[in-house]
Amino acid sequence: MYVENVHLTEDGAAVEIVDQTLLPGEKRLIRCETAEDCFAAIKDLQVRGAPAIGIFAGYALAVLARQIPEDADFLRALREKAAYLDAARPTAVNLHHALERLCAAAERNAGLSRAALTALLREEAERIQQEDVAMNEAISEYGLSLLSPGDGLLTHCNAGPLATSRYGTGLGPILLGQERGYGFRVYSDETRPLLQGARLTAFELSEAGVDVTLICDNMASLVMRQGRIQACLVGCDRIAANGDVANKIGTSGVAVLAKHYGIPFYVLGPSTTVDLSAPSGKEIVIEERDGREIAEMFYARPQAPAGVKCYNPAFDVTPAELISAIITEKGIFRYPYEEKLRGCRQER
Amino acid sequence: MYVENVHLTEDGAAVEIVDQTLLPGEKRLIRCETAEDCFAAIKDLQVRGAPAIGIFAGYALAVLARQIPEDADFLRALREKAAYLDAARPTAVNLHHALERLCAAAERNAGLSRAALTALLREEAERIQQEDVAMNEAISEYGLSLLSPGDGLLTHCNAGPLATSRYGTGLGPILLGQERGYGFRVYSDETRPLLQGARLTAFELSEAGVDVTLICDNMASLVMRQGRIQACLVGCDRIAANGDVANKIGTSGVAVLAKHYGIPFYVLGPSTTVDLSAPSGKEIVIEERDGREIAEMFYARPQAPAGVKCYNPAFDVTPAELISAIITEKGIFRYPYEEKLRGCRQER
Repeated sequence: MYVENVHLTEDGAAVEIVDQTLLPGEKRLIRCETAEDCFAAIKDLQVRGAPAIGIFAGYALAVLARQIPEDADFLRALREKAAYLDAARPTAVNLHHALERLCAAAERNAGLSRAALTALLREEAERIQQEDVAMNEAISEYGLSLLSPGDGLLTHCNAGPLATSRYGTGLGPILLGQERGYGFRVYSDETRPLLQGARLTAFELSEAGVDVTLICDNMASLVMRQGRIQACLVGCDRIAANGDVANKIGTSGVAVLAKHYGIPFYVLGPSTTVDLSAPSGKEIVIEERDGREIAEMFYARPQAPAGVKCYNPAFDVTPAELISAIITEKGIFRYPYEEKLRGCRQER
Repeated sequence: MYVENVHLTEDGAAVEIVDQTLLPGEKRLIRCETAEDCFAAIKDLQVRGAPAIGIFAGYALAVLARQIPEDADFLRALREKAAYLDAARPTAVNLHHALERLCAAAERNAGLSRAALTALLREEAERIQQEDVAMNEAISEYGLSLLSPGDGLLTHCNAGPLATSRYGTGLGPILLGQERGYGFRVYSDETRPLLQGARLTAFELSEAGVDVTLICDNMASLVMRQGRIQACLVGCDRIAANGDVANKIGTSGVAVLAKHYGIPFYVLGPSTTVDLSAPSGKEIVIEERDGREIAEMFYARPQAPAGVKCYNPAFDVTPAELISAIITEKGIFRYPYEEKLRGCRQER
């Protein structure tokens, strides 16, 4: 049976995850049993990726609920534990939503026995994961329907199973295709400055037996020109109402190259990524990070002159007209996107 | 007075260079006096860049010629010393040409006194550098004529003074413009995998007081989209007869982006870079280098899974139609290039 990266132990007494901070050098399973374990796993990025954090938080709270003393006020103690976990990464929306969902479920069923309540919390946590798995399976199926066996694929950054569940979003069609013998040849952009493509995508695809080749970001133009790439697949952080997509820095460059070389460029993500409050990409603020990530991080010695000015945007916006299709669990949408994206959000 | 990176000491007894292996952390001048010093400087890349190696070799042989014992066969000893230096980097064409040029000059003047011969060798070595300086000044003037004060410029890899002489080629218009108060704002691609943009371009421009900002290669699309870039400037390794340009990996990607965003893309280099024996870029073989440069070099620990497949092309070809102008010491050429490039080579 397939074991999800984030999962509950059989007895329900702990959550287990692969420690992402040790990747790609070591794949170590860690067991989170106490509130402190769970807090540290979130805070120290041993678990990362918005959906994975949400799933982890659900299971963690279900585990901690079992530890509440018989004589304590259960609902109050549960809220305290949730508040503690929530503080581990204050801006992680999925973390907050998952914890809130479990607390609300318990409160709606306040009359149940202690045993029934802990069982109910475990089920609610499992449902969070099942929903994510179902969503990713739908995205993966839709994505795979656009690809052919033997295709060369290019991917940027990481939207795989470690950060989500099951197949992931951006990597979903690749991993689903691998199970079905599609024999893709995948090129993974290393994705500077933080190298998610090298550390995570290349790791996840290698683990799954996919034929993956790591390249530097600036090599994408050459491999496209050489005819090695039949489609580009990327995840997304936010989709504006008009279909402009905010994703890891460098994504818009891949889209421009793909258009120039006549290669389809696909964006994959859950429909919840669509943000109708942003009419277009112009309204999406680009997070700027510490320039030391460019000038000295990861390195044994600085690789740029001391004090050099760096510009380190974490994301960029890919304009809708460069995107061949946006793929969510609701289906495959093609340009122009405005009306379709509105529909896919409103039917929720 | 301007001191070239490679220069003879006033007494003619040694060649001095900035040790490029210590950059960008430390700017240390080293003095090469013995044959072993000179050999090591070339072999260990303390001096690098084809023109700089040629200039260094000329001065080195002029220095070593002074050390030939009075009773030795001068021309034979000179040839031996030249052969020794030539072996330091067997594929460096400029190294071989400079040494050959000095030996031939001595042999043409075999009847002269020992003092006259050593003086003649020094003059010949100085001429090699003067010719390179004159060529780079012409390239820089032509390039600068295409730019306006306050322009935002993007550059990829490194074709600056350390690798050549005076202003360099790709960086020539920037450094010349700096002297004339143009106030350029320059974005330097770090240029993975070997980071020449971070280590050398950012260093050279900072040293000259230019407003330079280091970015990762995948950020070029964003800064162009933001309107920060008015022109792109790159050097070149080889120009095919039709104007296709082989240069550091990633150059073609910058050209595609520039075209998409409507930004001029300029290639700068000496006319000797034009290789009429290659009808187009298709005939230029791309050097492939060790994948460890991507997966583990420069890093304190590996940043990709052990054994992951890497593709590490060192160069790519930018098709002629993406290039706004090719700038050599002979002038500014615009597409289509074929006839103009043929002319610029044949008049030599």
